[in-house]
Amino acid sequence: MNDEIVLTGIKPTGKVHVGNYIAAIKPALQIAKDSNCTALYFIADYHGLTFIQNSNEFNELSYGIAATWLALGLDPERVVFYRQSDVPEIFELSWILSCLTSKGLMNRAHAYKSVLDKNEQLGVDMDTGVNMGLFTYPILMAADILLFQTDKVPVGKDQIQHVEIARDIAEGFNRNYGETFKLPNYIVDDNTAVIPGLDGRKMSKSYSNTIPLFESADDLRKLISKIKTDSTPPHEPKNPDTSNIFLLYKEFATPGQVQDLRDKFLNGISWGEAKQELFQVVNAFLEEPRRKYNDLMASPDKIDMILDEGAKKARAMAAPLLEEVKRKIGRYKC
Amino acid sequence: MNDEIVLTGIKPTGKVHVGNYIAAIKPALQIAKDSNCTALYFIADYHGLTFIQNSNEFNELSYGIAATWLALGLDPERVVFYRQSDVPEIFELSWILSCLTSKGLMNRAHAYKSVLDKNEQLGVDMDTGVNMGLFTYPILMAADILLFQTDKVPVGKDQIQHVEIARDIAEGFNRNYGETFKLPNYIVDDNTAVIPGLDGRKMSKSYSNTIPLFESADDLRKLISKIKTDSTPPHEPKNPDTSNIFLLYKEFATPGQVQDLRDKFLNGISWGEAKQELFQVVNAFLEEPRRKYNDLMASPDKIDMILDEGAKKARAMAAPLLEEVKRKIGRYKC
Repeated sequence: MNDEIVLTGIKPTGKVHVGNYIAAIKPALQIAKDSNCTALYFIADYHGLTFIQNSNEFNELSYGIAATWLALGLDPERVVFYRQSDVPEIFELSWILSCLTSKGLMNRAHAYKSVLDKNEQLGVDMDTGVNMGLFTYPILMAADILLFQTDKVPVGKDQIQHVEIARDIAEGFNRNYGETFKLPNYIVDDNTAVIPGLDGRKMSKSYSNTIPLFESADDLRKLISKIKTDSTPPHEPKNPDTSNIFLLYKEFATPGQVQDLRDKFLNGISWGEAKQELFQVVNAFLEEPRRKYNDLMASPDKIDMILDEGAKKARAMAAPLLEEVKRKIGRYKC
Repeated sequence: MNDEIVLTGIKPTGKVHVGNYIAAIKPALQIAKDSNCTALYFIADYHGLTFIQNSNEFNELSYGIAATWLALGLDPERVVFYRQSDVPEIFELSWILSCLTSKGLMNRAHAYKSVLDKNEQLGVDMDTGVNMGLFTYPILMAADILLFQTDKVPVGKDQIQHVEIARDIAEGFNRNYGETFKLPNYIVDDNTAVIPGLDGRKMSKSYSNTIPLFESADDLRKLISKIKTDSTPPHEPKNPDTSNIFLLYKEFATPGQVQDLRDKFLNGISWGEAKQELFQVVNAFLEEPRRKYNDLMASPDKIDMILDEGAKKARAMAAPLLEEVKRKIGRYKC
């Protein structure tokens, strides 16, 4: 395979919402369809362990996020789709890399520094509430990336530093032991608009303004009816380009549908009707994924089978490089 | 097996000397002969990586230390003798444990604190020269110990803290997820006298006063002849209990031989003769191990075979516990 390797870690977090889908999942699935790359997408469950230390929650979030991506169309024949905790090579490499990573580099990592700032404001000890998983996870992330000779890592802007740290660590290893790791690059999708939530602010769990992806059709309709609108009377023309309803609509509708709704906005459409149109396209789009999601969650052994298969492929890709690394550090008699 | 599990990690360091043998290897081999315990001794090569980042050195030290213990009588049929880097379960557990380890606990670890002190004296940044292997190795050590439900860890006084940290981490996991890990205890051998080097100070590489174990007979004789003595004339009586020669002699001779030399000291023996007697017993003791050591170093595949066999046993012991740990954190659908 001379394809470029594209790798994405998927953190098990709470209920996935429309904002997550539009900003992260949809573009990632698009990349995976590009035939010039080999996509590796993995459930970063052991990263989740840094903050999810409740057994049931850990379990539900891990299976839930796997089911979500599969339901939304991730094709495990095309994407190497695995669970991080099924690839022990990652943790061994992580230790090796940690011996070549200066502590100063971790001291400067954003996630750790933001906890330091918070603790300083609270006037408590600087490391209060910091576990060693949180402090060291950029090294684990470097192992996630470097073990597969990754070319590109699609990230949000707040995650650029992780790829930079992985590069730093790779360069350090290469300098000491000779050319071994490929230096990964990040891809940031600058075009991603902010996806508005029900109240018009950015859709985010922390604002409780989300539209979860796999609600029943009824609940979905109720949620969409709550989208905040202005007081323009029903029959007056409306500007589609400043409407959050229209913005969401565009993400789920065909170009023809988008043009039709634009015309309706300009000719005057009541907010109630506009919400009904939005519900129609979102629900039509989600019907099949919702059914798939519920099916998978009802038989987690199907999820296991898919992820086990992915882990086999991932390990087969990873093993030769780990052997090379071990050879370079002097593990084997030559 | 209801036996107690005794576990010892062996760091790959430079040429092993008589002081190492008497203070560490001999008592460890003695413990392993105790039929009421299952002894797990492992080459801590990945701990070595925190400070040995030269490929050849790493290789020679790792194989050298394995050959040393085997040559001195470690019986791989009786002791589970393995290389840390051959047991990936350790690194996976290490990550899991790191998520349950507060950073404050690592900030207080002796090895790290002593570097901080040195850096403070030098007036440089506190983390200068600290790699993340050095900072986090107490967690890896906890994984080394806890993965085997270890009862006892024989340690030097300076290593008590490592076992205490492993206990803390085990307690934290048990508290959160329910009883899982056995709490390990340390054994400190208080009786170990300081083994004198050639100049009378403690035998230590840093004083360049050691008697390496596997020198040729000729070199061994020359080294022993350099042991510092006082100016008591040849035929005058000498006090065996204040003589470093006698102290070393006791470690290698039979009780009968010890009594004989004691008498000779009291009746008057020249230092030259005493050194000759010491050389005789040390050389007689070391002849066979020296031959074995050289044999093993000449065919490292023999070492590999033994350690591979040991790793198989160790992994078979470790796997069920790691599965239990993964079940407890919520990895599997139940």
